[in-house]
Amino acid sequence: MKIKLSAIPTTAPEDASKKDYKKKTEKLVTRLGELQNIMYAEGKYSMLVILQGMDGSGKDGAVRNVFHTCTIAGLDLVSFKKPTEEEFAHDFLWRVHKWVPQKGMTTIFNRSHYEDILIQRVHNWIDMDRVKKRMAAINAFEELIQFDNNTLIFKFYMHISEEEQGIQLQQRLDDPAKFWKHNDGDWEERKLWNKYIDAYEYAINESTTPWHICPVDNRWYRDYFIAKTIVDKLETLNMKLPQPAK
Amino acid sequence: MKIKLSAIPTTAPEDASKKDYKKKTEKLVTRLGELQNIMYAEGKYSMLVILQGMDGSGKDGAVRNVFHTCTIAGLDLVSFKKPTEEEFAHDFLWRVHKWVPQKGMTTIFNRSHYEDILIQRVHNWIDMDRVKKRMAAINAFEELIQFDNNTLIFKFYMHISEEEQGIQLQQRLDDPAKFWKHNDGDWEERKLWNKYIDAYEYAINESTTPWHICPVDNRWYRDYFIAKTIVDKLETLNMKLPQPAK
Repeated sequence: MKIKLSAIPTTAPEDASKKDYKKKTEKLVTRLGELQNIMYAEGKYSMLVILQGMDGSGKDGAVRNVFHTCTIAGLDLVSFKKPTEEEFAHDFLWRVHKWVPQKGMTTIFNRSHYEDILIQRVHNWIDMDRVKKRMAAINAFEELIQFDNNTLIFKFYMHISEEEQGIQLQQRLDDPAKFWKHNDGDWEERKLWNKYIDAYEYAINESTTPWHICPVDNRWYRDYFIAKTIVDKLETLNMKLPQPAK
Repeated sequence: MKIKLSAIPTTAPEDASKKDYKKKTEKLVTRLGELQNIMYAEGKYSMLVILQGMDGSGKDGAVRNVFHTCTIAGLDLVSFKKPTEEEFAHDFLWRVHKWVPQKGMTTIFNRSHYEDILIQRVHNWIDMDRVKKRMAAINAFEELIQFDNNTLIFKFYMHISEEEQGIQLQQRLDDPAKFWKHNDGDWEERKLWNKYIDAYEYAINESTTPWHICPVDNRWYRDYFIAKTIVDKLETLNMKLPQPAK
């Protein structure tokens, strides 16, 4: 069944109490650090966390709040910006494949290969034929790292409302601590909101590896949602610290 | 239609004269150097040449004899050996994707990602389920670099007879200049000849990007075959030296 983003809330469930969820999140984040450390030591699985969402949807904050308990030795954060000249001279997955986690590692992608069918599509830099081919290539690529390297993939669509984005972008103008994040371009991209939503819905619906739609209007619920999704999966793996090397 | 390697000659056509073909090859190799230089300067296309074949099938000699006229600045040779520890900790295409040509470049793979469904299959290090998944991943990967980066792929199966391989391996023992290439392991692998042929036939028949079956028992014909295949294709591209940068 195809998902429709407008039918999915961008806010926490009505009955959720912020105080309770903050406590739950604290426990989950502690547990995430323990599990990620075991994953690193065991070297059997690896984990790729992909954060995709509009400007102001809280990707940076999620990285800070959810992963700070992780072993740094086993953690990589890769932020994908505008491709370099060398990256542009290769297929769009070249720069991404380079950074996939090796066994034991946890890698967070802040933005990802999906930009190549999002921003590039919204601005008509590529046509739909190329979007479709790239989507098929993405599916094959994500399947590859799962079946051939035990990589767990967690893809989060950071689901923000148009109203909340306006508030977030305005805060960057008003708050001196956030002003460095302000970018006139973000307000230009905001004008293309509906086109972005269409492009995201396509990417989410055509992916063979499923997405998690993360409501982010309440930042405390965002953190809970991400931590809970990852911890629940990792608990099923029955990972163990290895014996010391002889 | 599926190919059967035993039905394809490993030798030059009967009416081919070595002297005539050596002359033809000389012209083709000169032309290859010109075309590859234009490709490099133009920076629009790129070219990946994959040489796969049994031990002693003349991969190194083909590199020397066919590509020596190429602009070194635009040429990379990558020889894939046993994966390193870091490579083993990633999916099998990770180390290969890293080396695909950027626009303008010519890259030769001496052995390739196909080893991961050849030697690994023949020795039962992986099961058929993984072979099939890897084959699908290879097809998606080869399609990706073609549609998304204008990469021309030339895959040559270096088709040698079992008898000729025996002669080549023996020469490594007898000729002091070739002795450094001798490896006891090659004689062990030779015992698995039929299993290798089966694995090659599978790879060739399941590839969506077609292979060229290159008869190599006569080394002069091998050189002609490779040069002719590549030059004929490059001539169709209508590549041009660019205007100088302003």
